[in-house]
Amino acid sequence: MRLITLLAASAALLSVAPAKAADLSATAAALRDKALIDSTAWSVAESLTTEIGARPTGSPAMERARDWAAAKFAELGFTNIKVESYEAPSWLRGAESAEVVAPFPQKLHILGLGLSAPTPKGGLEAEIALFRTLEELKAQPPGALKGKIAVVTEKMIRAQDGSGYGAINAARTAGAAEASRRGAVAYLVRSLSTDDTRLPHTGGMRPWGDVTPIPAAALSTPDAELLEHMAERGRPVRVRLSMASSFTPKAPAWNISGEIRGSEAPDEVIVVGGHLDSWDPGTGAVDDAAGIAITTAAAKLIGELPHHPRRTIRVVMFGAEEQGGAGAAYAAAHKDELGRIVMVGESDEGAGAVWKVSLPKGSAGHPAMRAFASTLPAVKAYVEDAPARFGGADVFPMVAAGAPVADLHQDASRYFDLHHSADDTLDKIDPAELAQNVAVWAALLYTVADSDIDFRALAAGGGQ
Amino acid sequence: MRLITLLAASAALLSVAPAKAADLSATAAALRDKALIDSTAWSVAESLTTEIGARPTGSPAMERARDWAAAKFAELGFTNIKVESYEAPSWLRGAESAEVVAPFPQKLHILGLGLSAPTPKGGLEAEIALFRTLEELKAQPPGALKGKIAVVTEKMIRAQDGSGYGAINAARTAGAAEASRRGAVAYLVRSLSTDDTRLPHTGGMRPWGDVTPIPAAALSTPDAELLEHMAERGRPVRVRLSMASSFTPKAPAWNISGEIRGSEAPDEVIVVGGHLDSWDPGTGAVDDAAGIAITTAAAKLIGELPHHPRRTIRVVMFGAEEQGGAGAAYAAAHKDELGRIVMVGESDEGAGAVWKVSLPKGSAGHPAMRAFASTLPAVKAYVEDAPARFGGADVFPMVAAGAPVADLHQDASRYFDLHHSADDTLDKIDPAELAQNVAVWAALLYTVADSDIDFRALAAGGGQ
Repeated sequence: MRLITLLAASAALLSVAPAKAADLSATAAALRDKALIDSTAWSVAESLTTEIGARPTGSPAMERARDWAAAKFAELGFTNIKVESYEAPSWLRGAESAEVVAPFPQKLHILGLGLSAPTPKGGLEAEIALFRTLEELKAQPPGALKGKIAVVTEKMIRAQDGSGYGAINAARTAGAAEASRRGAVAYLVRSLSTDDTRLPHTGGMRPWGDVTPIPAAALSTPDAELLEHMAERGRPVRVRLSMASSFTPKAPAWNISGEIRGSEAPDEVIVVGGHLDSWDPGTGAVDDAAGIAITTAAAKLIGELPHHPRRTIRVVMFGAEEQGGAGAAYAAAHKDELGRIVMVGESDEGAGAVWKVSLPKGSAGHPAMRAFASTLPAVKAYVEDAPARFGGADVFPMVAAGAPVADLHQDASRYFDLHHSADDTLDKIDPAELAQNVAVWAALLYTVADSDIDFRALAAGGGQ
Repeated sequence: MRLITLLAASAALLSVAPAKAADLSATAAALRDKALIDSTAWSVAESLTTEIGARPTGSPAMERARDWAAAKFAELGFTNIKVESYEAPSWLRGAESAEVVAPFPQKLHILGLGLSAPTPKGGLEAEIALFRTLEELKAQPPGALKGKIAVVTEKMIRAQDGSGYGAINAARTAGAAEASRRGAVAYLVRSLSTDDTRLPHTGGMRPWGDVTPIPAAALSTPDAELLEHMAERGRPVRVRLSMASSFTPKAPAWNISGEIRGSEAPDEVIVVGGHLDSWDPGTGAVDDAAGIAITTAAAKLIGELPHHPRRTIRVVMFGAEEQGGAGAAYAAAHKDELGRIVMVGESDEGAGAVWKVSLPKGSAGHPAMRAFASTLPAVKAYVEDAPARFGGADVFPMVAAGAPVADLHQDASRYFDLHHSADDTLDKIDPAELAQNVAVWAALLYTVADSDIDFRALAAGGGQ
């Protein structure tokens, strides 16, 4: 009964035609409250993870995901649905196995990293050289790792803002190249994970450049510790590694978009979204079915208003984030439109609640943004003083080209338990936290879309 | 400094020759305190999981574990070390894979169950028939599952006393036979797990008897939920399953024992231990390197006293618990000794703290047992009113033949997150909780060994 009353109250508010900041605030708050009890985002995430599952760029599943995306936009009432083609790198995993062969035979749980070289057929076997940090490995002179499998077991720290990931990222993205430069025949890194399950976490590496590519894989955290325990005994530890993969530098990829067309200024466009591709071990739930679901559901709720807001809201499902390419392709394809892009944003930090919002530079004091900010305490979020700078990997190329950007920071405490691992599955999404995200996005998108706020002018005015 | 002072105080107490209940209590308390800061159990668990790892009955690793066990007893000062041979069933896993092929192609994470039949070479493919409970499946008439893969997705409940496991156990141990009886070609069951990782939990099944063996495997909990989501759509869900395995009904197995010989009545023996074998996916840390480590460390601490207690303490590392055979073999081999076995007990409930102790029937009021009970509040445990009944799978055949038994109940809240899965690794053991177990076992073993308490007489006296 309580929910129904709340819905009725919201529906009444939604029928008020907004004109001033007070109206913006009232409608944004009503949207927020409706979003909190709306199951659209959950349904979208459930649909994508159930009907498609893992969908790396260049895989048959990604083609199915493309069709799913266009059909989902149509089902939810979006218009001007577009499927934009481009090419992006695609590294696809083959069979992989690893084991300690001496002195203590045991299986190891690994996942190859994106851009890893395959091992020779039949695998390779070598002694390990174990380092507790990447810095220790980098302190080795040239040739010091000749013929060895280099292992780095540095631990990732849990943090609400996800900062433990950046702090240790180079161990995954650059460690193999550093090992190869010193003569290593393969590289194993402790998963960039805050969990203790025996599921490794994969992820991308920087392009090899002039360094000889070598096989590179993530160890589960218990396996990294197992190798530490073995290495402590001072006897040579020999590991056998077998890894297959394929790499296509220019695989077909797609950005799929749908719009809630603006009622007065449809050419002024707010571009938001998430990424449709995922790594292969999980079903791509928190990374990033959640972001797809959140932004799609927020826009859909706005589309159901009696009157569309002034400006167009475009949701983009970016098709190649994990291995790169989607953002640059989108910015290039839309460079003529860039001046009319009012604001960009992306949801790609999992399914945890939004706790902090960063707005475009100089805009926090504008009446429209103050109206938006007034909707946040009820959902335990706030607008921070510092302006947004990043937005997300898929929108950053537009940001770099001058597009105003907002950042909706999510609680990432648990995100790196799941990220890039087989554990990234639907059950890890809390429906209430997912809905809280939709509430914040809906309030922001509506406020920006139905106002005439000019972020470029505010930024030029020297605010913040 | 604090630890050293405590150790010195303990050492002083340990030099007092015990004679009365007060002395028993003082020495038991000193042992308890020493155990709390002793790292022997951790070292034993680290050694077994690092140097041997997974060790299913009938595997080469189990042979290495046998040698490890005898060497570890010698290293820790045990005497009269014995390796007793017998034969036990051995089901060993081969390559396994599963995937949904239609309508939504996705990989599934499975682990075959002990005694599972292999699939035909090349696998089998069939439509699933999904049931939310085993009872639903059992309500199906004969032939109703003909040609189907039966799936049961019943959920296990988390509980301190582990009672969620017993409540749902038949879904794993008897579900495949029930499915086969109704014509199913294979059986998949949601893992008996309280965790949400994508690692399945294996385990044994009841012997097939006159039922046709079929392939049977555990799904990870997210995979069970994925199949539920797919099945909810009402379209046929087809699964491809490929499973290999080997079965040897009479594989070589060993029970390895070592003793802290009694100083006055060495033929009166207390028999305790854990099981040395494990399931294959993890490194057998909480199941049951922990039990091996706890009982071995407790006896070793007692062996280091200036004077051994009156009676002999024998620690047995049972070599075939998971697939059965060790306990029956031990009871048979020691039937002539049974009348001189003072008490039996086993640590096989993980590495969580002991929260409750059940003593042999009628003994709780005896001064020696009251002395023991007085050591427990300091480690947050107590003696319950009800007598012990079970002891553990490996000692129960002796209990059934009349041996007095104690049960040290551990907090099993987290045990079934790990049990029988790849997540059963050393990092899941809390060294402080492990040491608390040693403290309780050491206090109990010492008190029983250095007293002349006669549990059989007390039981016959009609107490409790």
